[in-house]
Amino acid sequence: MAKESEVGVKDYHDPPPADLFNAEELTKWSFYRAIIAEFVATLLFLYITVLTIIGHKSQSDPRYVSDQCSGVGILGIAWAVGGMIFVLVYCTAGISGGHINPAVTFGLFLARKITLPRAVMYIVAQCLGAICGCGLVKAIQKTGRYDYYGGGANELADGYSKGTGLGAEIIGTFVLVYTVFSATDPKRNARDSHVPVLAPLPIGFAVFMVHLATIPITGTGINPARSLGAAVIYGKDKAWDDQWLFWVGPMIGAAIAAIYHQYVLRAGAVKALGSFRSNA
Amino acid sequence: MAKESEVGVKDYHDPPPADLFNAEELTKWSFYRAIIAEFVATLLFLYITVLTIIGHKSQSDPRYVSDQCSGVGILGIAWAVGGMIFVLVYCTAGISGGHINPAVTFGLFLARKITLPRAVMYIVAQCLGAICGCGLVKAIQKTGRYDYYGGGANELADGYSKGTGLGAEIIGTFVLVYTVFSATDPKRNARDSHVPVLAPLPIGFAVFMVHLATIPITGTGINPARSLGAAVIYGKDKAWDDQWLFWVGPMIGAAIAAIYHQYVLRAGAVKALGSFRSNA
Amino acid sequence: MAKESEVGVKDYHDPPPADLFNAEELTKWSFYRAIIAEFVATLLFLYITVLTIIGHKSQSDPRYVSDQCSGVGILGIAWAVGGMIFVLVYCTAGISGGHINPAVTFGLFLARKITLPRAVMYIVAQCLGAICGCGLVKAIQKTGRYDYYGGGANELADGYSKGTGLGAEIIGTFVLVYTVFSATDPKRNARDSHVPVLAPLPIGFAVFMVHLATIPITGTGINPARSLGAAVIYGKDKAWDDQWLFWVGPMIGAAIAAIYHQYVLRAGAVKALGSFRSNA
Amino acid sequence: MAKESEVGVKDYHDPPPADLFNAEELTKWSFYRAIIAEFVATLLFLYITVLTIIGHKSQSDPRYVSDQCSGVGILGIAWAVGGMIFVLVYCTAGISGGHINPAVTFGLFLARKITLPRAVMYIVAQCLGAICGCGLVKAIQKTGRYDYYGGGANELADGYSKGTGLGAEIIGTFVLVYTVFSATDPKRNARDSHVPVLAPLPIGFAVFMVHLATIPITGTGINPARSLGAAVIYGKDKAWDDQWLFWVGPMIGAAIAAIYHQYVLRAGAVKALGSFRSNA
Repeated sequence: MAKESEVGVKDYHDPPPADLFNAEELTKWSFYRAIIAEFVATLLFLYITVLTIIGHKSQSDPRYVSDQCSGVGILGIAWAVGGMIFVLVYCTAGISGGHINPAVTFGLFLARKITLPRAVMYIVAQCLGAICGCGLVKAIQKTGRYDYYGGGANELADGYSKGTGLGAEIIGTFVLVYTVFSATDPKRNARDSHVPVLAPLPIGFAVFMVHLATIPITGTGINPARSLGAAVIYGKDKAWDDQWLFWVGPMIGAAIAAIYHQYVLRAGAVKALGSFRSNA
Repeated sequence: MAKESEVGVKDYHDPPPADLFNAEELTKWSFYRAIIAEFVATLLFLYITVLTIIGHKSQSDPRYVSDQCSGVGILGIAWAVGGMIFVLVYCTAGISGGHINPAVTFGLFLARKITLPRAVMYIVAQCLGAICGCGLVKAIQKTGRYDYYGGGANELADGYSKGTGLGAEIIGTFVLVYTVFSATDPKRNARDSHVPVLAPLPIGFAVFMVHLATIPITGTGINPARSLGAAVIYGKDKAWDDQWLFWVGPMIGAAIAAIYHQYVLRAGAVKALGSFRSNA
Repeated sequence: MAKESEVGVKDYHDPPPADLFNAEELTKWSFYRAIIAEFVATLLFLYITVLTIIGHKSQSDPRYVSDQCSGVGILGIAWAVGGMIFVLVYCTAGISGGHINPAVTFGLFLARKITLPRAVMYIVAQCLGAICGCGLVKAIQKTGRYDYYGGGANELADGYSKGTGLGAEIIGTFVLVYTVFSATDPKRNARDSHVPVLAPLPIGFAVFMVHLATIPITGTGINPARSLGAAVIYGKDKAWDDQWLFWVGPMIGAAIAAIYHQYVLRAGAVKALGSFRSNA
Repeated sequence: MAKESEVGVKDYHDPPPADLFNAEELTKWSFYRAIIAEFVATLLFLYITVLTIIGHKSQSDPRYVSDQCSGVGILGIAWAVGGMIFVLVYCTAGISGGHINPAVTFGLFLARKITLPRAVMYIVAQCLGAICGCGLVKAIQKTGRYDYYGGGANELADGYSKGTGLGAEIIGTFVLVYTVFSATDPKRNARDSHVPVLAPLPIGFAVFMVHLATIPITGTGINPARSLGAAVIYGKDKAWDDQWLFWVGPMIGAAIAAIYHQYVLRAGAVKALGSFRSNA
């Protein structure tokens, strides 16, 4: 809770913007390894979270269970999602950057942190991983139970308009991507003394928080791969009808977060305006 | 769990008290950026937490839902509030100090950590952000649902006196601001070896704890901007009648925490008394 | 998860055992400040946790509430206790060592980490703080509600023998004090590279875990000050009849933890036996 | 969320693979101390978690309790398991490496991180500790209650095939052991700047997450010692009939995690293939 030191000398290293295309990157094993890591992480993410959702719904179904409190609850589902993001970002951060989410990849691409081929390949890997993760859940759950309990698909709840759902996804993804930018800011890494960087934890908590707030509205997407994977394996009309919401909303939210971080918080705007005495 | 080293040499840097007024500060972009960050953070704080409250209440309403356990519960609400404070303090600490709460700003001003203009502007930004956050929730919730479920407003529960509610707010805010002071103490930053500083986490937990204890009494304010924002958008008499409680209580609690930290824990008192051999 | 390096040179500093009595300590403000900090922390600990217990019981009382899920649950109570220990150990570690529990103080005294006067004064301050904290809860709760819901007092549940309760308290306190010793080991502080020390968090979690397991048996003491404070303010026979359990059990558990850490884990035993090639 | 630096120089120290057998290790007290620590930690792990399970089941049993929400819930059980792993890995990491799980020991042995005698002795100690921990729970619970509520034993839920249960155990253990490898990677320790290593926390969370997902299917083993200990003390046929699942599944999952980490993520595969320009 200290305000930033206002000395004129930068004691941190701002990496140059990533190239749009970098041919050398494609010749390295670390590039392909990162894509594999994104695939595996997104697969595990969907496997654990959708299994938790189906398990909760079957354990608190009044048709079969007398004790409706016996599932993990929405609180348990929110923990499963946020907790897995914490674990997986922690595990993959050093390999791929730990995106596990096309909206995060898109936001970091907009901010010129990664190249276009990397962004595209990550998103493809995330979507394939999500589909495989949901497929595993369907295979593990008894026939019919996966579909019966909604397949973990994101759908707009009754009584909410498309615009409302879109708004919820935009703001929710903004919270997540804003946290990602804050946690991975190079200025922070170099200088922060009393707010040391334990990046994956607040990122996981941001996901947890957004789920507590918007599960009743959209089931909470804020991750297009997650929404796509569940829709592909579940395959019912409703999940496909609302699918665009879970791509457009998160992408807009991520873009706003990128702009907010790059142009407002990192003082890019003021350099452009040239009207204040900047401290950079 | 080690007692403080009692050597006579200070190995940390105690910054001088902030000026009451600092003209230079007003010419810098970082000052305005901090105000924007406080506005945005408080907006997101109210958006997520009030949405969680309304969602919980609608999902456990016996008039509409057969399974009254299906909401996130008071435990989920307490997590939403504490968790958002953790995430937002983490994200904004390097920009604005991460107050997100007029009581915290007031306490830090009393301890001469920030200037008067900064304190005033932060509080204004926090209040505006809180109002906007609650407005967003009202816009996203179907007509009537926001008001029907109480708008997330802080109100004294039936059967508790004004004095009781005030006491609960004073002690609750003391817990929070005491944690803030402990977490941001420059002595701690320089010296602590086995209690490394991960400041935003205990601050978020302090908020979580206070909510577990006092949601049944006042709904838990300990943040005047949060109470004001909900009252403005909700607008019912009861929320306004009790509003003073949620300003007076937190400000008193913050002041006591500032005094306790500066005059008791930081040995200010003993220097004044001059009767013990201080170790400073 | 690496095994300890087995080189023959110590790269850490083992402080000498504390004197049994240290006259100089008594002349310093830091000694008295530490006692004040223990008093305040234990007061806040009991205030928050007992208020959470009473609030939960009143909100899930089938006589008054139709929705029995509306309290924070035993899970919420366990979080309140463990979370407060995390916050308070974090806040007071640099001032008093952050004991907040006579069993912890006793264990550290046995291991010669603190002097006798400090141990005695801490325990007195903790007990007084606990009594005041419970008194505050009684003052804040409407007349009769505090007593009606058991005053947060520790009592042996129906159907468990004294021996069982004593065993539960011994093992529970062992878990806590073993964690405290592990977290504050000077060897750990100097050397640990991939298990960095964030001592207050595992200590808080240890308390959380023990509460999940033994709330149904004894309400979970593992802190004699907490049990005494509630008994004094609640004052019913049952709480006093079982009180000895909540002193004897924790003290035995703390002593076993001190012996386990000092003589087994820190290789003291092998030096005494002289039969293995020690690596010290 | 930065991708790994791709410079050609290694700035970390990769320890050589452990010998299969190391005679010197057997002459040191630190070896035996580590075995004791694994025994004690696994004992405490089973004691706390099985006590939580029995307590929850007895407190939400509709035959005896009117309020079926009064237990800690599956969410509370999942917290107990994940939280204890966090605490115990934290406490024992510096002594034994903090395995507390034969599958983790097996995975680290496969990756040549520990010797064969150490692996065997750890697994024996973990199994004995687990048996003793469950025995303590049986001793503390009133006669009959331990058996009546299933003794915390892992059993395949009705309606799931052996293959399904095996799959759930394999993937669950993969999540855990993959996290362990990621958290203890020497590359990570040396270089990671914005994802600092707080290894025990994500490991505990990984266990928490897997329990949220698979408690409804197998009760969640992912730890053969835990499954064996409960089966030995509970002793009913069903627990023994399914026992092989809880050994074969975790061992396969750990092996896949070891292969994934060593051959894919650590670029071992590419060195073997020799077809990409490695960055090592």
